[in-house]
Amino acid sequence: MTPEEFRRFGHEAIDWVADYLRDVRDLPVLPDVTPGDIAKQLPSAGPAQGEPMNAILRDFRELIVPGLTQWNHPRFHAYFSVSSSGPGILGELLCAAVNVNGMLWKSAPAATELEQVALDWLRQWIGLPEEFFGIIYDTASMSSFHAIAAARELADPDVREKGMTLPLVLYTSEQSHSSIEKAALALGIGRNNVRRIPADAKFRMRVDLLRREIEVDRAAGRKPFCVVATVGTTSTSSIDPVPEIARIAEEHGLWLHVDASYAGSAAIVPEFQWILDGAEHADSLVLNPHKWLFTPIDLSAFYTRRPEILRRAFSLVPEYLKTADGGRAINYMDYGIQLGRRFRALKLWFVMRSFGRDGIAAILRAHVRWAQELASIIENHPDFEVAAPVPLSLVCFRYRGTDDQNRRLLDAINASGVTFLSHTVLNGRFTLRLAIGHFAVTWEDVMTSWRAVQDAAVTIAK
Amino acid sequence: MTPEEFRRFGHEAIDWVADYLRDVRDLPVLPDVTPGDIAKQLPSAGPAQGEPMNAILRDFRELIVPGLTQWNHPRFHAYFSVSSSGPGILGELLCAAVNVNGMLWKSAPAATELEQVALDWLRQWIGLPEEFFGIIYDTASMSSFHAIAAARELADPDVREKGMTLPLVLYTSEQSHSSIEKAALALGIGRNNVRRIPADAKFRMRVDLLRREIEVDRAAGRKPFCVVATVGTTSTSSIDPVPEIARIAEEHGLWLHVDASYAGSAAIVPEFQWILDGAEHADSLVLNPHKWLFTPIDLSAFYTRRPEILRRAFSLVPEYLKTADGGRAINYMDYGIQLGRRFRALKLWFVMRSFGRDGIAAILRAHVRWAQELASIIENHPDFEVAAPVPLSLVCFRYRGTDDQNRRLLDAINASGVTFLSHTVLNGRFTLRLAIGHFAVTWEDVMTSWRAVQDAAVTIAK
Repeated sequence: MTPEEFRRFGHEAIDWVADYLRDVRDLPVLPDVTPGDIAKQLPSAGPAQGEPMNAILRDFRELIVPGLTQWNHPRFHAYFSVSSSGPGILGELLCAAVNVNGMLWKSAPAATELEQVALDWLRQWIGLPEEFFGIIYDTASMSSFHAIAAARELADPDVREKGMTLPLVLYTSEQSHSSIEKAALALGIGRNNVRRIPADAKFRMRVDLLRREIEVDRAAGRKPFCVVATVGTTSTSSIDPVPEIARIAEEHGLWLHVDASYAGSAAIVPEFQWILDGAEHADSLVLNPHKWLFTPIDLSAFYTRRPEILRRAFSLVPEYLKTADGGRAINYMDYGIQLGRRFRALKLWFVMRSFGRDGIAAILRAHVRWAQELASIIENHPDFEVAAPVPLSLVCFRYRGTDDQNRRLLDAINASGVTFLSHTVLNGRFTLRLAIGHFAVTWEDVMTSWRAVQDAAVTIAK
Repeated sequence: MTPEEFRRFGHEAIDWVADYLRDVRDLPVLPDVTPGDIAKQLPSAGPAQGEPMNAILRDFRELIVPGLTQWNHPRFHAYFSVSSSGPGILGELLCAAVNVNGMLWKSAPAATELEQVALDWLRQWIGLPEEFFGIIYDTASMSSFHAIAAARELADPDVREKGMTLPLVLYTSEQSHSSIEKAALALGIGRNNVRRIPADAKFRMRVDLLRREIEVDRAAGRKPFCVVATVGTTSTSSIDPVPEIARIAEEHGLWLHVDASYAGSAAIVPEFQWILDGAEHADSLVLNPHKWLFTPIDLSAFYTRRPEILRRAFSLVPEYLKTADGGRAINYMDYGIQLGRRFRALKLWFVMRSFGRDGIAAILRAHVRWAQELASIIENHPDFEVAAPVPLSLVCFRYRGTDDQNRRLLDAINASGVTFLSHTVLNGRFTLRLAIGHFAVTWEDVMTSWRAVQDAAVTIAK
């Protein structure tokens, strides 16, 4: 493909994307496919000779897109509603073109410095103190992995050389994300050494039980080393009492990691800045702009006030990567397991500049207001009930019926193609989740989704 | 940004990329900047109000691009020469637009199935047996991390629950990539339990010493569990004797992981398929299309014949991610630590189809031929010597002088902006590395770079 061919097909691709952003509401959110449907339309071997780009783009449009769940659809309300805005997409395009690897400052000076600058802007917007050092990882799974690895390093400085030898214990809420347990098992800590502290009626970690568990472990000769609090849990968006957890962490010398992957962005809105109360005492915090900040997947923003510990845990510089900048420049490869680092900061910078802080705050504020208005509509409907508090933009609710009816309701809603919801289990009961978060979602979209829920409920009731 | 504004600025961005691809040779490969130069041109806080996109694109062009090391420049010969081709860039653009997260089959059916299909095509092209299961991770660091984690799981099925308790020992060559040691320290194995087996005169792992070390560890009551062989080491592109290593691995029940991150792509060329001899006996293998397969960073292709072990190591499905597909569909989240998964397969599929197998083979064949021709030119030059065999597209060489002169030579070459080389240390001596790998590099580029080396040498000699 010559640069001129790239220009031609690039314009074609941009037109497709513009049309897609304009018309995505016409697509079913969840495609009507079964496993194998897409693969069987594709050749079983790659082509010996190159194929023309118009055939490739046609197959993308005709075979691939109809087989995708449309995450960038404003009525995608499952899991968390993420979205990829125009400025973010342009950032990704340009990132792919320059194709730098920001492993070292020298290998991509502007990428390293823009990562520091953009994360510092974001730090100010969410109200974290200045001493927090920012680094971008791919996903929250990896951000939390690095947090727990740094905590492990602090608790046992021999671990790097000798491997795991101490019985280290990690604390988190039973409502915390599975990535915390995954990190613990990957790091050789073991699931048996992860204490899942029960939550209260509002799905927040019970600090009395946290304190008790720590004392039990201490008495038994084990070594508590880390506590992970969640601001915006996956099931219900509940917010752990971080200030109290921070006090316990300080008392017992535990690393405090705050998982604000989804909800952290809300702290940009002045009236929601309280959700990060206590996080100023944390050792680390994660917030995913690819969740609720209109940035294409993937981009996870990680902050720590102890970058030297993270660096001690991961720095390993072979001869072929040594540079003469010694000390003056940040080499981000020293702060993580991944050597290859895309220029992710670019898209975040595009998004922050294009929307501006107030623009972002206005959209997030609307999402929360709509979630709360929807909750109030649901609460007043005779056939439905709200299943958890709605502090932010996620509504958990149930049809007043059996678990099986709720399960069938969810399938019927999603089969409509109008909207896509997901589920969780709360207090042992199957519960529907409706998350609002797309940069272009409207109140009308929310009402369209709610109508789809009610329509499906009619079918279920039969 | 409305869809129509996206269209307008998208066309502008595409034109910039097309111009960039056409004119990138006019840019210095390594920018003339010092730490802080870029950051100080940027505001210290993000804007409250959104800014116009033309200002953002202008700053990208004027402040960011001149501060980047141009990895997508055909005369970028440092580290490994990676490149981002037009079809790959279009794939990334479309990936960002649809913005799916392929954690579950259901969350992105076509992304999951295309990942299987594209990796199967690539598997056939490099001649791996059919039983190898493919999965895409972000980087080779993570691919090798998952390989070693699976090996750990096989060696100690209690590790998931109880954490690391056995003294597990890993073997790799002293020439292997730093990511292997990083994975071992992250996984709680400890650097003391990584045996870095000395290499022979051609920088290949010495199998006699591998065997001896395993026996010593066995005798001491430690548990050998994994050996990592490298096909294309970072310093010299040497190729470990995989068939013999595979025999030892089988004898001792070790997991064999083959790190072919850079060189694996060469197996697409019929006359280089031998480089993967023995890999058919491996438990896992990694190959990075974002290295020598014209695919934008990041995309690491991982293959294993034991996906069930990988799954046992990492599967952890919380209620909110349970789906009803049970067994019929692959949920890639079960095979790794990262829950968020971009639709990386798309760009690989675009690249494979657009170039075709023969088209890719022709380019890689030329890269190797040029590297060998350059080596022969260097060998015949009175002031230079070739420092390692050149089996593929990397030339290691030295100026016949002191280490300090070679160091100054490298700085002078890179300061020219004409080309960018990196270094390593071989047999205790500072050595220059020139890697050829860009999709659009020409013999003329190689000669231009070589002239820049000679010109710089004149300065040094003074």
